[in-house]
Amino acid sequence: MPTRVEAGIVDALTEVVGAAAMSTGDDVGDDYTHDEALTAHPHRPLAVVRPADTAEVARVVQLAADAGVALTARGSGTGLSGACIPTEGGIVVSFERMNEILEIDLENHVAVVQPGVTLDQLDQATGAHGLVYPVFPGESSASLGGNVATNAGGMRAVKYGVTRHQVLGLEAVLGTGEVIRTGGKFVKATTGYDLTQLVVGSEGTLALVTEATLKLYPRPAHAATVLAPFATLADVTAAVPKIVASGIGPLLVEYLDVITMDAIARGHGVELGVDPAIKEQATAYLVVVLEDRHENRLEEDTAELATLLGDLGALDVYVLPSAAGAKLIEAREKAFWTAKAAGADDIIDMVVPRASIPRYMAAVAQLAQERASLVVGCGHAGDGNVHLSVFQKDQAARHDLIHDIFAAGMQLGGAISGEHGIGTEKKVYVAELEDPVKLTLMRRIKAAFDPAGILNPGTIFDPEDFDGEERT
Amino acid sequence: MPTRVEAGIVDALTEVVGAAAMSTGDDVGDDYTHDEALTAHPHRPLAVVRPADTAEVARVVQLAADAGVALTARGSGTGLSGACIPTEGGIVVSFERMNEILEIDLENHVAVVQPGVTLDQLDQATGAHGLVYPVFPGESSASLGGNVATNAGGMRAVKYGVTRHQVLGLEAVLGTGEVIRTGGKFVKATTGYDLTQLVVGSEGTLALVTEATLKLYPRPAHAATVLAPFATLADVTAAVPKIVASGIGPLLVEYLDVITMDAIARGHGVELGVDPAIKEQATAYLVVVLEDRHENRLEEDTAELATLLGDLGALDVYVLPSAAGAKLIEAREKAFWTAKAAGADDIIDMVVPRASIPRYMAAVAQLAQERASLVVGCGHAGDGNVHLSVFQKDQAARHDLIHDIFAAGMQLGGAISGEHGIGTEKKVYVAELEDPVKLTLMRRIKAAFDPAGILNPGTIFDPEDFDGEERT
Repeated sequence: MPTRVEAGIVDALTEVVGAAAMSTGDDVGDDYTHDEALTAHPHRPLAVVRPADTAEVARVVQLAADAGVALTARGSGTGLSGACIPTEGGIVVSFERMNEILEIDLENHVAVVQPGVTLDQLDQATGAHGLVYPVFPGESSASLGGNVATNAGGMRAVKYGVTRHQVLGLEAVLGTGEVIRTGGKFVKATTGYDLTQLVVGSEGTLALVTEATLKLYPRPAHAATVLAPFATLADVTAAVPKIVASGIGPLLVEYLDVITMDAIARGHGVELGVDPAIKEQATAYLVVVLEDRHENRLEEDTAELATLLGDLGALDVYVLPSAAGAKLIEAREKAFWTAKAAGADDIIDMVVPRASIPRYMAAVAQLAQERASLVVGCGHAGDGNVHLSVFQKDQAARHDLIHDIFAAGMQLGGAISGEHGIGTEKKVYVAELEDPVKLTLMRRIKAAFDPAGILNPGTIFDPEDFDGEERT
Repeated sequence: MPTRVEAGIVDALTEVVGAAAMSTGDDVGDDYTHDEALTAHPHRPLAVVRPADTAEVARVVQLAADAGVALTARGSGTGLSGACIPTEGGIVVSFERMNEILEIDLENHVAVVQPGVTLDQLDQATGAHGLVYPVFPGESSASLGGNVATNAGGMRAVKYGVTRHQVLGLEAVLGTGEVIRTGGKFVKATTGYDLTQLVVGSEGTLALVTEATLKLYPRPAHAATVLAPFATLADVTAAVPKIVASGIGPLLVEYLDVITMDAIARGHGVELGVDPAIKEQATAYLVVVLEDRHENRLEEDTAELATLLGDLGALDVYVLPSAAGAKLIEAREKAFWTAKAAGADDIIDMVVPRASIPRYMAAVAQLAQERASLVVGCGHAGDGNVHLSVFQKDQAARHDLIHDIFAAGMQLGGAISGEHGIGTEKKVYVAELEDPVKLTLMRRIKAAFDPAGILNPGTIFDPEDFDGEERT
């Protein structure tokens, strides 16, 4: 039975969005109770509201602020850190009805989208104009609103950067219910603080994004996928900075350890044509994709890359036929599902300076061995973003191992997450390892946006006076 | 005569930095009292401190916070908006002694610099390794600390972005004297709020930057400068989006009106070899620079660009000999000095969506005519950043004209400054034209970083309870 306060807020929200756009109690589908984080527990919200426009979002936030009820924004629910799992008794604001591409501006090369637009939807719309929105985080059903909230990355970051680098402007609702517009259809401005970049990656804790202006690029016509097996993981990771430094300008530079490569190749029926004798010796693979608007330049660059890879100790170099190349990249994008299917207990995506990957991976290997755990992975080597699957059933042992893996990366100048975000699932490590001065500053920034503390509380960090029940 | 409070803080600061690193009274050189803003009045600070390291900066800030004395950070003093002019009775923190390039990291392609390092100094150091820090705001004596504070731009933004896009990490001292480190040697992280991007462009109001980690790029070996005269300014600005969209990837795309072109060509003795008959018809010029690591690709792209410019209505197309090209670009970089020498009363650098430049320039021309004022200029057309020199001696009339010029750009989705910043000189327009909700939010953010309100108060916006004497 809902309490009187709960019934009051539900009635008030229903008045705003209409009964058809509101679910409560058993009508709330299970989908709304979780995301894809391996470690998180589902939570049932008091209600799910599906606003139709910014004005409705603003009224929902005002009502929640007045009632002191927590709000959690939700796009497609494909996140990996628990950031869109509601608090018990809180409200989910689902953007599924705000799913319109408002504009593809061919002169300024920007798209203006509502938060519920999916990457797939945007890719089809931009492709029709020979343009591309270059963030491919591996799950094309993800929403742009979710991507903005988590600063989603993906394999192409080494060339194009991540979501942060594409977001030129936002419309967003503060925790007070006030609506602001930031930035615009331009790449630069120095007109007060950059509120756009502050909201990007804030995981729904500062504002609810109701519109985003995104940078588009010409879609190059030609691409080539180059696969290079190496004898050791250290050889692969040592080669990466030299490839990035060469000036060839790769679209992506991925490494895969042999366990991960075998799992994704088997799982997705990818046949790469690697010579069996070479396969025998290989313990790690490098995948590099190049793209260009001129086919002859692509061929030249591919040849230059192949030579360079040979010089850097590759056992062999394969330029994959385009179907096999595309299949490998697609399978690599699904590495999370492969890890999940293999029974991984947690996944992490630490970022370190790219030249420090060899030292970091050595430290990880040693920690895994000391703790009798299995840690395998792959990563966006070009930008130092290492994706690791951790196999360790014991929760306390796993916590200690992951803590030490993060600490090792931070000693090398790294950060806990490159693109998955902190959410609810990694905040314990942030609390343990981050500078308390920065955490206090972030709490004060949150209070500036959200004085009532209703926007996704308990995500990234707990409120300072937190003494209640954990969400996870 | 200093008051007792003033004498107390001066003594305390002297104890921190040493007498040799401290100037007071008449010992304060005139240079410390102004920047290059045309409209600002110099202010004499109580003292100038020249700290040697971060620890000294932190102690200086603590002392100032305790005493409630205003601090203004200063690099080379080349800013154009008054942001480094001290408050009367405040303290200048000059970073001239913290001028060391701490590291050029060849594997991660980053430079780690102290704030007093100049662009020229960094360019020499990176050039020795075939790398480049790609922000050239037109004044190579500018300091990196100042560039970070103002989010400095320049002509190459259309290819590389501006300072914001190069700053990967910072060390900074908050208004409390606490020291934080943000980001690192990587292009992406989603580990809490992006404090780096918040501090970039905050014009010394949130924190004092004591170290910056900056992205470097391979320095392409080959460049070509293409000059195209056009019959009308509207033709030039209409051509720009099509050049950017072509995929050729220009390094810079600049327009100059004929008055500005004549002034800078005459002022710098640049001989461009434009046919006199063409010159007669031209009222505006487009300058495009291409660069590549392969000479043959540069030649191909230059030919493609020349054809495109012809199709877009250029009266003629000139590929300049490299000495003349370099001289033109250098002269264009000094356009501010040309405007100053010509007696401009103010300069502005509004940014609008690049496809809106023709409409914006038409609106500006009409406003100038209505107000019997002269407004001429040039601009970073590729990124919608329009630099205008305003000739109107009457201060009230000039204010109204500039207000309306900003309002016209904001109606097109623009922002008041693309790269010069707001400082003290444009804050009146921000107060008049910006959303008060955003200004209130910015004030709350400032309070989060600087609870005592001592960091460059009165820059970007006045404190909410401001009722004292204006700095300008």
